[in-house]
Formats: sequence, structure tokens, C-alpha cells
Amino acid sequence: MILFTCDYNEGAHPRIIERLAATNLEQNPGYGMDAHSAAARGYISELTGVPADRIHFLVGGTQTNFTLIAAALRPHEGVLSPETGHINVHESGAVEATGHKVITLPPTNGKITAAQAEAAFEAHYNDATHEHIVKPAMIYISEPTETGTVYSIGELRALRDTAHKYGATLYVDGARLGYAMASDACDFTLRDLAETCDAFYIGGTKVGALFGEALVISNESLGRDFRYIMKQRGAMLAKGRLLGIQFETLFEDGLYFEISKHAVALAMRVRDAFLRAGCPFYAESPTNQQFPLITPALRAHLEREFVFEHWGERDGLEAVRFATSWATTEEQVAALEKSLAVFSVTAY
Amino acid sequence: MILFTCDYNEGAHPRIIERLAATNLEQNPGYGMDAHSAAARGYISELTGVPADRIHFLVGGTQTNFTLIAAALRPHEGVLSPETGHINVHESGAVEATGHKVITLPPTNGKITAAQAEAAFEAHYNDATHEHIVKPAMIYISEPTETGTVYSIGELRALRDTAHKYGATLYVDGARLGYAMASDACDFTLRDLAETCDAFYIGGTKVGALFGEALVISNESLGRDFRYIMKQRGAMLAKGRLLGIQFETLFEDGLYFEISKHAVALAMRVRDAFLRAGCPFYAESPTNQQFPLITPALRAHLEREFVFEHWGERDGLEAVRFATSWATTEEQVAALEKSLAVFSVTAY
Amino acid sequence: MILFTCDYNEGAHPRIIERLAATNLEQNPGYGMDAHSAAARGYISELTGVPADRIHFLVGGTQTNFTLIAAALRPHEGVLSPETGHINVHESGAVEATGHKVITLPPTNGKITAAQAEAAFEAHYNDATHEHIVKPAMIYISEPTETGTVYSIGELRALRDTAHKYGATLYVDGARLGYAMASDACDFTLRDLAETCDAFYIGGTKVGALFGEALVISNESLGRDFRYIMKQRGAMLAKGRLLGIQFETLFEDGLYFEISKHAVALAMRVRDAFLRAGCPFYAESPTNQQFPLITPALRAHLEREFVFEHWGERDGLEAVRFATSWATTEEQVAALEKSLAVFSVTAY
Amino acid sequence: MILFTCDYNEGAHPRIIERLAATNLEQNPGYGMDAHSAAARGYISELTGVPADRIHFLVGGTQTNFTLIAAALRPHEGVLSPETGHINVHESGAVEATGHKVITLPPTNGKITAAQAEAAFEAHYNDATHEHIVKPAMIYISEPTETGTVYSIGELRALRDTAHKYGATLYVDGARLGYAMASDACDFTLRDLAETCDAFYIGGTKVGALFGEALVISNESLGRDFRYIMKQRGAMLAKGRLLGIQFETLFEDGLYFEISKHAVALAMRVRDAFLRAGCPFYAESPTNQQFPLITPALRAHLEREFVFEHWGERDGLEAVRFATSWATTEEQVAALEKSLAVFSVTAY
Repeated sequence: MILFTCDYNEGAHPRIIERLAATNLEQNPGYGMDAHSAAARGYISELTGVPADRIHFLVGGTQTNFTLIAAALRPHEGVLSPETGHINVHESGAVEATGHKVITLPPTNGKITAAQAEAAFEAHYNDATHEHIVKPAMIYISEPTETGTVYSIGELRALRDTAHKYGATLYVDGARLGYAMASDACDFTLRDLAETCDAFYIGGTKVGALFGEALVISNESLGRDFRYIMKQRGAMLAKGRLLGIQFETLFEDGLYFEISKHAVALAMRVRDAFLRAGCPFYAESPTNQQFPLITPALRAHLEREFVFEHWGERDGLEAVRFATSWATTEEQVAALEKSLAVFSVTAY
Repeated sequence: MILFTCDYNEGAHPRIIERLAATNLEQNPGYGMDAHSAAARGYISELTGVPADRIHFLVGGTQTNFTLIAAALRPHEGVLSPETGHINVHESGAVEATGHKVITLPPTNGKITAAQAEAAFEAHYNDATHEHIVKPAMIYISEPTETGTVYSIGELRALRDTAHKYGATLYVDGARLGYAMASDACDFTLRDLAETCDAFYIGGTKVGALFGEALVISNESLGRDFRYIMKQRGAMLAKGRLLGIQFETLFEDGLYFEISKHAVALAMRVRDAFLRAGCPFYAESPTNQQFPLITPALRAHLEREFVFEHWGERDGLEAVRFATSWATTEEQVAALEKSLAVFSVTAY
Repeated sequence: MILFTCDYNEGAHPRIIERLAATNLEQNPGYGMDAHSAAARGYISELTGVPADRIHFLVGGTQTNFTLIAAALRPHEGVLSPETGHINVHESGAVEATGHKVITLPPTNGKITAAQAEAAFEAHYNDATHEHIVKPAMIYISEPTETGTVYSIGELRALRDTAHKYGATLYVDGARLGYAMASDACDFTLRDLAETCDAFYIGGTKVGALFGEALVISNESLGRDFRYIMKQRGAMLAKGRLLGIQFETLFEDGLYFEISKHAVALAMRVRDAFLRAGCPFYAESPTNQQFPLITPALRAHLEREFVFEHWGERDGLEAVRFATSWATTEEQVAALEKSLAVFSVTAY
Repeated sequence: MILFTCDYNEGAHPRIIERLAATNLEQNPGYGMDAHSAAARGYISELTGVPADRIHFLVGGTQTNFTLIAAALRPHEGVLSPETGHINVHESGAVEATGHKVITLPPTNGKITAAQAEAAFEAHYNDATHEHIVKPAMIYISEPTETGTVYSIGELRALRDTAHKYGATLYVDGARLGYAMASDACDFTLRDLAETCDAFYIGGTKVGALFGEALVISNESLGRDFRYIMKQRGAMLAKGRLLGIQFETLFEDGLYFEISKHAVALAMRVRDAFLRAGCPFYAESPTNQQFPLITPALRAHLEREFVFEHWGERDGLEAVRFATSWATTEEQVAALEKSLAVFSVTAY
């Protein structure tokens, strides 16, 4: 069986494993104060323009989200999020556990707009009893979104301008950031992103690392005392070198972007194969996750060779997810192409 | 320079690195549902007698402590801890961040006694206004303690009996548990420990793993819905296989105990060398951390070859810490022995 | 000007003021341990069948809600609420500040149904990754609802049965409970309510008291150690006598019900007057709050004599709120009736 | 029996009761937006020099403490407090429930010194791993202290200077502030206090009100969005008029100070009577609480006529508390004087 279920089924890109082995007996100080972490912060600082002391390596995405949000908000403040936002649906209430409400907006194609955010801020401040209502103080979005779509830099800037207009901040969850940046839909660099957001993270777990997320805090005031809060939330890895080594490997010569391009290129072949098979899509994703809508007959056909994830329903069809990663091979995708080609699709 | 600063300066025991490399391309489900995690839970279940579904792998010690404590306590409940307890002094208020007070008791030789705990419970319940005071509902201790001392099973049972008498629980932080179990002072097995505590964890980070702690929840009621709370607190690693592989390696054939014995044997040589040099000790530790009291002259002498940690002061002398681990070599210890032998100690 | 803006514009029913004055120099123990509080608990215990030690007096509604919810839920648990629920919209994130997510369901006529709750529980437990999602563990509703509608005892029982089927509880916010019970729509007694809910509160602030809510915890397990949690959340009034005296006065001879009937009877006259004027309604409320939909012309006419609250919009008309209370007089309502009668309504 | 147990056994000063009755039928907006609250804020603003919009009325002391502390601190910050501080011992972990550690210092005569605070800050910032330790960011003290002693303005300024030196703030719990200000030991005005602290509250509950505390936030940055946080913590009374009316009455013509002087004058007579009887004291209190040390024989003698509170033990004697208030009469004190005079004390 070939797994297309997600982008974190395997370990890490082989170069990371090699580096971990090669450095294993080095003696390093803990908690991110080692030379590998410093080097990794340096690479990312150069790419983003953000000072190295505002770049932090955390273990996972949920942890990164709630730690940054806890650092950024005062008790009565909440965070605007698309209904489908990871913090709203798949983090077991981690943000609420830090005391903050997630205030949801209905997304279109996975995204929310500056106009929606504007309306939410206006509704809040125009309410005579707004002190009885959670104050929206941050906009949270994912780039790419949960359904693989990509915000343009213009959309991001509009969200940021709206946030700032109301004294709020913009935070971008980049769990799969590499795949957005490798897509045709991307019109920004890491530096553009850093200049646009108050904070964002560059996901490692889903883009070739064993684990780890690089949080970049552009807005100085959000970064104050951040290491205390990391430690408090269990987000300061004792052997911080492990994170340093991984991000050093990913960013010293562009491996992160190379991995991402590989995965997206294969995902485009997956997309095209489903298109040729006549399948509509749940979302139009230019990134590494594809969400075709399939019939029971096609599911039965595909299940003989492939594993993939159930995602939802639309128009009487089942939405499924096929994800590619650094570990996906040309052979695996070719097998899928062949399988779809032999299936005569007539039902759409 | 030879580092004796702590027991987590290096990566992991080489067998762990090899196993990570060997399994890197396996496709595994995430979040601890993989076969390696299942195998590791099985090994630990066998050793402890606790059902596998109440054994969980988390990333770090602070995280393990606050996640378990958050799962165990109701809002008005607090945790009794030695003043020197890790949760009280070195976790940036992580327990308080989950809403709970750490109630401290003064330790003797790093340990608190059942009599102290009994007095604390009695003082609470005898207070006419006890509803205005945090309810002590858990006893937290470390085995071995922060200064390397070891509770006997009798002491642990007395603490447990006291806790249970007042409707409280006993939780043991085993960040360095292997070293306690490898010491001459140990009179218990993992099964004894599991039968005595309501929960404890077997530390990996400081005993040969890259990272990871195996939490064993003996008391069924503490374990209810624990995975939700792990996820909420950022303690559920996406690629849970990494934890599974490490604990599988450590427990499939006793590597964990072997590593610990190695480190403790070398620590005893370190201890004896300081004793021969005439040094008194800050604490009498039978485990992998040694706390000799040294003069400025001895410090100056040792600093030429060795790195070690400042710990405190006593009687006009400086307490320092020398720690051994799986990575400490006979040669390193021999060098220390030789250095101490040539230093003519006359000042004590 | 005559105010119909809300039901807490005045102080308290005169009998309460008299009683406070009469008892002012009594010396009483604090924190609800006085004889007045005991007597008040006794009256409510008799009416509800719930033991007096599970009846507590708190100062306000928001406080009562978050204190009970904090006492009832474990960290990963959330509370199902109508989108319009007070805890979701008008408590500045008080529930989230205790760490818990409010999970919303769209109401119909202010109410949610057992079928909706059932679907929410099913969706949760059928999700393969439900451990990554907040666990619904309580249903919160208001009786009457925010728009004045009333759940029948059958509807309440269905909600309770659904909650219990999934290990959850039912909690009823009775900020205006008296007005529901005084309405034609009410088919239950306080004892029925106590037998149906796991906890509910009898609102005083909006039904004739200066302040105060009587929380009745039917479900013994929710009530364990409740006074600790009250104290912790600032909900244990030092001079608890003040709450005791007020609820003693309201419940010793039925004043609470009498006040409520008075207000509802006048509200029905308000409703009928708007009906005669041809106004449709935003919600069909049989209780003390009426939500007519009015034209700009009618607003201009009414504003000359009356103050009332803007509530929203529907079908091009403005929804407004007229509320009655113990303090509303026949004369005030007669003035409104007269005003509406002289206004020739043609625009609907 | 005559009660000297505490200063909140009775209702409120009769003028407050009269005012509540007289204003009962007024129609007022809620939540502190009424004219009485505005007037009361005005009086206190004049006395303190702090703008009226940074003066807030809350219901009780525990609530005031945790609401202000939650507003002031970021997640990793804690509050320095004397071990005997109310927030540390008698608020059921309310501060920890907002996520913050209370860091204790041993008091002398109920007070902590600037030198102690300085040492605590230095110890923190000199620790190489201070990011692993809660950051001290506020000093909390009570004026008068729990044992009735009074900080001089010089001591307060020294604490403030130390706090500010380390980027921290000074917060003063004035639950019994009137009694400190009425004492011979007081060398400051309310304006001095406001200029010295970042925030403090003027206690009403224990100084003649039914309930209520007036929080004065001198430091503008602590006051930002404070009403949101009050609402969130259940500290915004619906009928805010009740607080406004009480503080209006207490401050429009100096009643607060008059009440306090009355109580302290009587307390000095209580003190002198115990001194004449040969009793030593647990603390030397110039305020309304007296803590004589008594023998079993004296206890037996006094218990025939008086009720008082057990406080502790020292040197084989029992410490007890006698408290006076606005409601204590000359006759009650005269009875105590007489009783002590007839008791022949020989045992000290």
C-alpha cells in the first residue's frame, strides 16, 4: 500500500538524520543556547530580516500557537480565526486553556478577508456594552490554509492593516509554510512575510524535520521575555541542539525550499490526474494537499492500492485528502496516475 | 576540557540514533498510535504492571509535570512539594499557569517526610477557615531528589499512605529515575514504584534519550481522558514514533538500566576521589550527581581541565555539581581522579 | 421619561430594604454561615428538594456561571451553548478565562434542541481525532432565554437525557427564572427543575434583589468542595448575611413568585399593546421582556415618553426591548398603552 | 455576649442604609455608569489626584486583588508577598487561579522591607537560568498588615523605588486602609499613597460599608481596559449604584475617616487595658486589631462575656484577636476594660 494520508508519516529528511548522528557526541549547552541553534537563528534572521533573538525553536505547532498567543494577549483579549482554523478545531482547546476566546469568522475557500475582520472589529467597538464582550486583539490565519489555499501578500497586508487599525496583531500559522512558498500562488518572500505579520512560524514537523517549528516574532513587543513563557509552557526543549541542528540543515543551503518544491510538484501531478479523471475538488489547492471529490466506485478502486484520508462531503461526493511530502516518490505518484487513468469516470 | 556540567550535554545513546536512522522511512500513524510506541508501552507495562493505555510518552519534564498535575487537580487544589522541588523553582511557574498553587515544605537532605505532609494536611483541615485556603490534594517529590538523594520504598509508602489518608495522591518526578534505581540506596523495582505512587514518570531526556519521558499513571482515575489533556498542553508529539522508538530501545533489553548503572558507577568514583581529597559534601548522593564542597584553590585547580556547575555555598565552601551520564567515559573520570590526587588538600 | 430599558434599573423590592435596615446591627458570622443564609437555604431546599448544603448564594450571574462551570469541568472539557448564550456573548470571556471553550449551536427562537446537542456529541465521538477536539461535557442554556422564550419541562428533560447519555451535565442559567415560572408557558415547578438539571440558579439581581443568585446544585458530584471554589473566584461575600436576608425575604412567603407574576402580567399588556398597534415581534416571549419590531416613525413617537433598548434588526424593522420588573407600575404601562393606541400604525 | 471577633460582623454604617433606602426607586443605568458612582469616583479622585476613570468599585477584597493582579501581570510574572499576605494564605489560591505564582518573603512585624525585595530581584536576575524561574514583577503588601502594623510612607516609597528599579510595580491591599490612616503611626495622606503605589484599594467591607472596595490605579498602564477584566472576573456589579452610593456616603464628608478614628480610638483603649493587665502582644498594632497574648486562665475569664478569635501561639501563650469597628461602642469597650481590671494577672 502507498500512503498519501499526510505529510508527517515518515521520520525526517535523510540529511537531518545524518547530521544528528554526526553531532551526537558533541557537548552542548541546553535550552537553545548551543551553536547549532545560533547558526539556525542566523540563517533565518538573514532570510527574514528579524533579529536572531526574536527567533525561537519550539517542538510542535499547537504548542507554538498557544505559547505565542499567551505571550501576546492580555486576559480579556481574544483571537479572530477562521472557523476552520487549527486553533479552533484541532488543538483540544489549547488557546482557551491559556484563558483566551477564539472568535470565529466563516471562511471562503479556507480564507478570511480583511473586510470580514474589519466588520468584526467595528461590531465590537460599536457595541455599547463592548466591555462585556471579548476584545478582538489578534487575527490568526494559516498559510497555506487547512484546505491548501494560499493568501497573497496583498491579502496578508490588508489583514495586517486592519488588525493594526484596531490595535490588534496578525499572527500566521505556517505549519506548512514551505508548501505555500513553493506554490505558483505565492507572491512573497520570507522577508515580505516577516514585514507583514507581527509573528509567524516556519513549520518543520510537516516539512522534513523530525519535529520543530521556527517562530519568528517581527513585532518586538510580542517577543519580550518570550523564553520565560516558552519554558513555562513546556516549549523549551532541554537538548535545544536537536532543533538547532534540524533548522540549520533545512536553512543553510535552501533544503527547506527544495523539499517543499518537490512535494508541490508531485501534488500538482496528483491534482492533474484527478482532473483528468473528471473529479471536481473540495478546494482549489496549489499546495501539497489535494482534496478531490470522489464517488464510492472510485474510492473502492483507489483503496486497493492507496491509503488516503476522509475529509468531508459535498454535493453527494466524498472529499478526500491526498498529501505529498519530501518523502513522496515519483514512483508513488506515477502509480496513482496510472490507477486513475484506468478508472473510467462517468459519474460526475 | 571535560564537561561534567550535567547529564544532557550530548545527544542520545548511539543505539537510539541508529534505530531512528533505520526506521526513518517507515510510514507510521502519528500521535503515539504507531507500533513502536505500542511496543514501548508494552515493555513498560510489563515492568510496572500498569496497563499500557495508562502509559504515555511526553517530550519533556516540565511538560510532563504540569500536564499530569492539570489532569489530576480540581481548581482549588494545590500540590505539596519540597521547597527545592523542580516544579517550585525551575519551571517558570508552569504549575501556577495551570491554575494551581505549589505549597512548599522545607526538605531535609532533599527529601520531605510523611510526618511533614501529615502535619500540613492536619493544619489545613483543622483550620476553621480551610475553605479560604488552597486544599492540598497531591504530594509531589522527585526520585532521586534534586540533590541526588533517594527515597526508600518505605519512605515512599509512608508518603503515599499519608496522601491517601487525606484524599490526596502521590506523584513522583523521575527525571533521573534510572540513576536512583542503579544506586545502592535503591530498595525497590519499577513495579514497587508503580504500586506505591498514583503516577510517576521514567525520565528519558537525562538518561540516554534525545528527549522524552514515559509517564505511568497507576491510579486509573488520574488517567481518564489523558490524551485530550496531552494534546491541549502541547504534549502530544505529531511523530510520536520518535518517542516510541527511543523507549523501545531503552526498555526492550534493559539498556535504560545499563546506562544508569554505568553513570552511577562512574559517579561513585567521582565521589570517592573527592572524599580522598578531603572534601565534605553538600548532599550525600548515591546517584549520578555529586555535590562536593570545594575551596577556591581546588576550584582553580580543577577549572584547568574540567567544566562543572556552581550549586551554592555552605560553611564558607562552594558547592559544585559533577554529573555523569551514559556518555561519561572511564578516561574522563580517571583524569578527574588523577587531578584530585595531585592536589594536596589541607584546608578542610 | 419612563424607563423600560431593563429589569435592574431600581434598587430592590422595598421589603428587602426594610429587612436590611432592621437587621443592620445584628452581629453575624461571615461567608454565608449566618442564620439568615441558613434560613434562606432552608426555604429553597424545601422548594427544590435539594439538600441545603448544595445551595449557595453568589453575587452575580457571570460569577455564578463561571464558578459553577470551573467546578464542573476538567481542563479539556467544554460547554455547549446557544450562540446567543450569555456565557458566549456577554461575559467578556469569563468561561474561557477559567480555561474552557464555549462550543456554540445555532438557536431557534432562542432555544437549542436535544437533537442538536445529540448531533454535536455524536460528531465529537465519531471523529477519529476526537482527542484533538474539546470534549463537550456540559449543556448550558438560559431559562427563560435571552429573548424571553421558555423551555418546557419536556424540552429540558430531553436535553438532560442527551447530556447524561454522553456523560455530560445540564446547567440552567436562571438569571430571570422567576419570569419563566410566572409565564403561561411554564409547565414545571422548582422541584421539577431541580430534578431535571444538574445545576441551575435562581436569579435575584433581575428579580427584585439588590444583587444575588441562588445556585442549586442537584448533582452531588458537582457540588463537592464548592465553597473553596467560590472563595477562589471572589464569589464568597464577606457579609454573606446580605444574600441570606435577601433570599429569605424573597422565599419565606412567595414574594419571589409574586414579583415575577406582577412583571409578567404587565409585560403581557405591553405585548398586547404592540400587537394592537400592528407590530410584529422579534421573538414570541411570554415573559417579562418584549421585543417588538418597530418603524422609525414609531420609534420617534415612543421616544418622546419612554426609554427602551435597541436589540437588533429584522426585515427592515428595528427590534427593541421593553422590560418590566417588580418596580414597573400599572401607570407606566397604561401610559405606554395609551401612546401606542394614538399612534396610527400603517407601515407593516 | 459582646463580639470582638472581627470588623465585619454588622451590616453597614446607618447612613449607608438610609441612603440605600432613600435612593431605592431611582432608575439608574447599571455597571457603574450611574451618577452615584460618578460622584463617588469624583470624591476619591479629588483625595488621591488620580483621574476618575482609573477608580473602580469592586465587591470584595479577594476579587479586587486577583482582578488587579490579572490585569497587571504577563503569564510568566509573579508577585512578591509577605508569607502572611492575604493573597498567599486566605484566598484559596485565587491569584494562582489567574495563572500567577505568589513568591513569598518572611515578614518582620507583619512587614517586608525594600532590602528584602531588592535581594529577591537580585537573586532572580543574577541566576543564570532566570528564564526558568518566575519573574518577580509586582510587590504586594497590605496597609495595615494582617497583624495591624503600618508601613510608613518612607517604607512604602522604598518598596516602590525597588519595584520600579526592576521594572516591577507596587500594589497595596487596603482592606483596612482607614484604620492605618486613623492610627498614630500614619504619616501619609491618600494623595501620598496614590503617588507612591502603582495601585491600591480603599477597603469598604471592613470599614463601614455593606461591601465594596474602591480600587485606585495610579499607574495608567495598569488601568488599560480594566473594565473588561472586571466584567470577566465577575467584579462588575450589575447594580453598580449600590457601590456608588456607599462610597459617596463614605467620602462626601469624611465619614470613612471618622469611622476609622472611632474604631482605632477604641482599639487603643483595648490595647491599654491588656497592657495594664500585664499581657504581652503578638504584634504591636496601632490600628483596630489587637493581638494580646493570654493565659488559659485569662481566656476562661474573658470567655464569659466576650467573643474573640484565636490567632496563634507564642512563648507558651495564646495569641487572640480583638477587633473594633464603626459598630463598636464605648460601653462594649468599657465592659472589657472592667473585666480585665478585675482579673489579677500574675502569670506573665
